[in-house]
Amino acid sequence: MGQKPITFLRQVLALCSYPELLEDTKFPEDAKKRARRILEACGGHSIGAYSASQGIECIRQDVARYIEKRDGGISSNPDNIYLSTGASDAIVTMLKLLVCGEGRDRTGVMISIPQYPLYSAALADLGAVQINYYLDEDKCWGLDVAELKRSLSEARQHCNPRVLCIINPGNPTGQVQSRQCIEDVIRFAKEEHLFLMADEVYQDNVYAEGCEFHSFKKVLFEMGPEYSSTVEMASFHSTSKCYMGECGFRGGYMEIINMDPEVKAQLIKLVSVRLCPPVPGQALLDLVVNPPQPDEPSYATFMKERTAVLAALAEKAKITEQIFNTVPGITCNPVQGAMYTFPRITLPQKAIDKAEAEGQAPDMLYCMRLLEEEGICLVPGSGFGQREGTFHFRMTILPPTEKLKIVLQKISAFHLRFTQEFS
Amino acid sequence: MGQKPITFLRQVLALCSYPELLEDTKFPEDAKKRARRILEACGGHSIGAYSASQGIECIRQDVARYIEKRDGGISSNPDNIYLSTGASDAIVTMLKLLVCGEGRDRTGVMISIPQYPLYSAALADLGAVQINYYLDEDKCWGLDVAELKRSLSEARQHCNPRVLCIINPGNPTGQVQSRQCIEDVIRFAKEEHLFLMADEVYQDNVYAEGCEFHSFKKVLFEMGPEYSSTVEMASFHSTSKCYMGECGFRGGYMEIINMDPEVKAQLIKLVSVRLCPPVPGQALLDLVVNPPQPDEPSYATFMKERTAVLAALAEKAKITEQIFNTVPGITCNPVQGAMYTFPRITLPQKAIDKAEAEGQAPDMLYCMRLLEEEGICLVPGSGFGQREGTFHFRMTILPPTEKLKIVLQKISAFHLRFTQEFS
Repeated sequence: MGQKPITFLRQVLALCSYPELLEDTKFPEDAKKRARRILEACGGHSIGAYSASQGIECIRQDVARYIEKRDGGISSNPDNIYLSTGASDAIVTMLKLLVCGEGRDRTGVMISIPQYPLYSAALADLGAVQINYYLDEDKCWGLDVAELKRSLSEARQHCNPRVLCIINPGNPTGQVQSRQCIEDVIRFAKEEHLFLMADEVYQDNVYAEGCEFHSFKKVLFEMGPEYSSTVEMASFHSTSKCYMGECGFRGGYMEIINMDPEVKAQLIKLVSVRLCPPVPGQALLDLVVNPPQPDEPSYATFMKERTAVLAALAEKAKITEQIFNTVPGITCNPVQGAMYTFPRITLPQKAIDKAEAEGQAPDMLYCMRLLEEEGICLVPGSGFGQREGTFHFRMTILPPTEKLKIVLQKISAFHLRFTQEFS
Repeated sequence: MGQKPITFLRQVLALCSYPELLEDTKFPEDAKKRARRILEACGGHSIGAYSASQGIECIRQDVARYIEKRDGGISSNPDNIYLSTGASDAIVTMLKLLVCGEGRDRTGVMISIPQYPLYSAALADLGAVQINYYLDEDKCWGLDVAELKRSLSEARQHCNPRVLCIINPGNPTGQVQSRQCIEDVIRFAKEEHLFLMADEVYQDNVYAEGCEFHSFKKVLFEMGPEYSSTVEMASFHSTSKCYMGECGFRGGYMEIINMDPEVKAQLIKLVSVRLCPPVPGQALLDLVVNPPQPDEPSYATFMKERTAVLAALAEKAKITEQIFNTVPGITCNPVQGAMYTFPRITLPQKAIDKAEAEGQAPDMLYCMRLLEEEGICLVPGSGFGQREGTFHFRMTILPPTEKLKIVLQKISAFHLRFTQEFS
């Protein structure tokens, strides 16, 4: 998508890969300092050695400090930090830990609809019951506790709901939850004895004015000891998003809160089976949580690159919303955060009939036609789940701005053609 | 363990991490050529991008060519190659794919005892039935088909055996299977309709004179179409062993053979959930299967480093066997391959009684005492499985030669003290 890697991150990774470069004057001192520190923490001073299954200790300490800073000083314990092979790995591991039972006792896991398909796939794989709660498209994909209640009470008829998953900022829907909403969700989780899984991988991808990222952990602790010492929670983060976009390295972590020590012992066992997360990804994560500081030589370049990426994303979020909302039959909520738009499309009845006659989801027909006619690949809303009778697609806002504009115009023109053809 | 990374591998990884170095005259041309080729195959020419879930296509092609060369020209199809997050990931994925059923229909998986605990852990996690077959310690941990038959026919009483796992060269037992034995195993698998999982991660770690690595695939194809077109198989390899030892990168692959296309479609789905294996590990694997050639500038250094690592391992394998076999009460099979020795220890009855009174495995008591007295950490045989009434420990042969000698002498002296104390 044309996004350039951040120089500082790649310099340190090169230094860690080939430490002979530590003698090279081309590399700035702060990059060398970070590389030396990471290498010292590695077995045999090499990123080629296995690490502890939970991740390298000094990196877990850096993650804990980063979380403390993010959350205004609320303490974070490195023992509660688990490094992972991207966030997906940690999410699947946590679901595996929490799911059990058979028949009516099977674990139910509440997930938002539309959802990120990792959740439905992992739940199917684990034999857990997927409990859908719907986000409110009319309120900018907001989460309403009344809907959580409805969904939970229906699910209690046939399974044992134990987990509530939240994605904030949202994938595929791009909303950013308000502080009030997060409080409501936490209160609900406490009342209903649900384990909270907070997928917060887009925490630094917030664009809309008036929106702000509030971590579930911070809100939990600000609600007082009644909550902060009882609600069980895991929060997930990744090196794949934000200004980094380094998905290929598969770096990530989770922080667990209020987990029973006996469950934690099982978690340690579970992560040990796969030996350790990739060490280059761990190193990268360390740089993300411990970036160049104002008095260091790489700071200026780092900030310039970081700001450019995030500013471009914010601009693209805006453009996407604006262009789509000019098209009759496309309605698009503001992309408050994350990297996606999930616009609603009105499809002519004839198109719906044709798709159904062919055994295809109508929005799949739409996306396949777009792919054939324009070479643009969108994911149909039916892949994420949507309210019956509504249709959507997911599109990333990642292409370079000028390319994105062309893509948006092509989709808009296609939409009009498609509508006309089936009218 | 003091083993130095191979220069060529790390140079290319540094170049891939920070492509600005491609302009640096310090790096040899063949390293740059490899880096450019890998980067061209990556999304956006960056190892930070996601790859296809099955792995980067050109790397899968290189793996296929490597297998063809290894197996004397027997063809390998890149479509059957799946890159993975170390071999463990591929092994767990394959077990997950093959395990199903409930009660008496539950899938049974045959594993060697002693075994590598990844297998027992994964099987417990998946709810599969672990079927033990015992290696013959008196025949250098050889595999006897009569024992496979015994084990299978007993298992058929209570589960549905579908998979036979073989580790060759052996972990933790260090044996290298003969060609004849592999033929026998393949014949058995065909007759009994078992899926063969060949864990061949130590394929380049063969030290003993007269021993040679024979891949299951090569033997299968040499047995003729009756076998090569019917026996279903997966073979696993890794960047963590041999001369590389780059475990932290979590690189690996599996090749599948004769898999039903519908099952393969499920496998693709399964690997897609976790997005992709770490790309730096994929890049590293590419270098392992596509090392410097005789006409390239890095060849001499590469071969020197590679040979030094493997020669040192061969020497250490020999020393380990020799020293242990001088100690009364320790008997040690030759370390024909892999990186471990699994000597049998005779424990005095009083030590066994004491351990049992304390609810501890006798070899665990032994290993804990050694750890306390000498700071040497061995893994008790009970962690791998062993014939009732026999005791062992596993030790790696990896420490630097001089250190290894000291360790071996300390263990020998400890063994005598321990035996005396409890006699």
